[in-house]
Amino acid sequence: MHQLTEFLKGVTCDVDARLDQLIPAGATSPRTLHEAIRWSVFAGGKRFRPAILIAVGEALGAPRSTMLSTAAAVEMIHTYSLIHDDLPAMDDDDLRRGKATCHVKFGEATAILAGDVLQTLAFKAVADDAGLSAEDRIRIISLLAEASGTPYGMVSGQQLDLDAEGNELSIQEIAEIHAQKTGALITASAVCGAIIASAREEEITVFRSFGEKLGLLFQITDDLLDVTQETATLGKTAGKDVSSRKATYPAHYGHVKTGEMAKTVRDDALKGLNDLDRDTVLLRGMVEFVVSRNS
Amino acid sequence: MHQLTEFLKGVTCDVDARLDQLIPAGATSPRTLHEAIRWSVFAGGKRFRPAILIAVGEALGAPRSTMLSTAAAVEMIHTYSLIHDDLPAMDDDDLRRGKATCHVKFGEATAILAGDVLQTLAFKAVADDAGLSAEDRIRIISLLAEASGTPYGMVSGQQLDLDAEGNELSIQEIAEIHAQKTGALITASAVCGAIIASAREEEITVFRSFGEKLGLLFQITDDLLDVTQETATLGKTAGKDVSSRKATYPAHYGHVKTGEMAKTVRDDALKGLNDLDRDTVLLRGMVEFVVSRNS
Repeated sequence: MHQLTEFLKGVTCDVDARLDQLIPAGATSPRTLHEAIRWSVFAGGKRFRPAILIAVGEALGAPRSTMLSTAAAVEMIHTYSLIHDDLPAMDDDDLRRGKATCHVKFGEATAILAGDVLQTLAFKAVADDAGLSAEDRIRIISLLAEASGTPYGMVSGQQLDLDAEGNELSIQEIAEIHAQKTGALITASAVCGAIIASAREEEITVFRSFGEKLGLLFQITDDLLDVTQETATLGKTAGKDVSSRKATYPAHYGHVKTGEMAKTVRDDALKGLNDLDRDTVLLRGMVEFVVSRNS
Repeated sequence: MHQLTEFLKGVTCDVDARLDQLIPAGATSPRTLHEAIRWSVFAGGKRFRPAILIAVGEALGAPRSTMLSTAAAVEMIHTYSLIHDDLPAMDDDDLRRGKATCHVKFGEATAILAGDVLQTLAFKAVADDAGLSAEDRIRIISLLAEASGTPYGMVSGQQLDLDAEGNELSIQEIAEIHAQKTGALITASAVCGAIIASAREEEITVFRSFGEKLGLLFQITDDLLDVTQETATLGKTAGKDVSSRKATYPAHYGHVKTGEMAKTVRDDALKGLNDLDRDTVLLRGMVEFVVSRNS
């Protein structure tokens, strides 16, 4: 795991540097807005989606420099969704990554605007990325918009999740919510890495499938962490899913069976990499990272 | 003005048809989300920004069919901003275009998501527009992101407006807020029409300047309407700007002097069209339309 730890550290460093270039400085007017954006973007996130994107792209031979704007864009989309998810009208969370959430620190109106404009900055980052062909930029923007939008993406998943609160859901419905709300953007991250590396269509299919499994694994382990970890370790309010009766795997299957599911999905994700004639050490490491993380 | 009335009717019809194609049907899951989007998008807006875009493009010889997705995208960005602007944490408005606002009808959480995903759908509409070259799509996405974003766009203008509430502002500060909050997207609409028509750079400059003047005129007349019209005519709560002490021209200059300013800006916008060797009847009509509208 040493190689993976070094890789994740490097990704965080490189992606953060790019985010710092793409987001207006805190001192730029309007200061409140840019400080609020930076508060949430640089709150110590794991940069998991950029790491998947870059791990896939590097496995396929793409230079990291060609992937940083897209990786930063994915992280900006993810962060915008967290800022809006935390709002009083949504999950009403005070704590995120161990810090006050954006609206607690800067007020609701500014938090709404900060989330809005992070989405704008994400698409602008890809559109302005002179290191990619216009065709690749268009393809990536369309893919990210689909994965973060509706009718089968992050926002539609959030709406399904809202609609589901307080209802008993089938496991198919839970899986559907997770696939849209969390899985779609994780999958798109893997596919973006493959597109930038000019992968063949068969390889893109393999990485789409890998991304889907990794996304599912991520959500299962996220649900497990919510019931097993304490708030201090998690950096966000623990037990939140249970108390708000959100659709989760442990709520449906119980803790033990959900743990077994995680192992099955992990094996499945690793198996999918077997057919690739590439160095998949880091990709395997990413799978283990998702399984063994504690926050 | 008969020709202009016909033009505006045609634009509304064509742009609405394209919006209907680009936005998932109300019956598509998640229904609440898509019904909320459609509630706000088809609330009887004037399609002013699409009309500018198309008037510019047609003056330069572009076929209307090449402009409809971009025109729809601009309208989606505008509508997302209205939905979020109306939220309780922002302007807290119950009425928009004579109908209940999105959060009043569908709840705050869904209104936040509806606004979020309208922005996503806007960028996707341009990225997927097979009628434009990849280069033009990239240029348009970048331009729209800049105009609707920060540090000099719609969202930064909204933040400046928030920060200004309750303060005495200089006229420069008021102009700056308006230029960002309203002017930037109107200007971008004019420029998009010119880009799609493959205009020369000097022509793009003329239309950028025309858009800036039209945007300023639009905001001045908007401020005037807020103090002179009643809620029923306006379709939104009248007197709102004064009661919430927002930065407006009439609040600073009084009603009469603001009316004179509107005339000056109008003359200036018309004069800018003189050097163009194009049929500018509709563009002149758009200027008069902004001056003489009553809602």
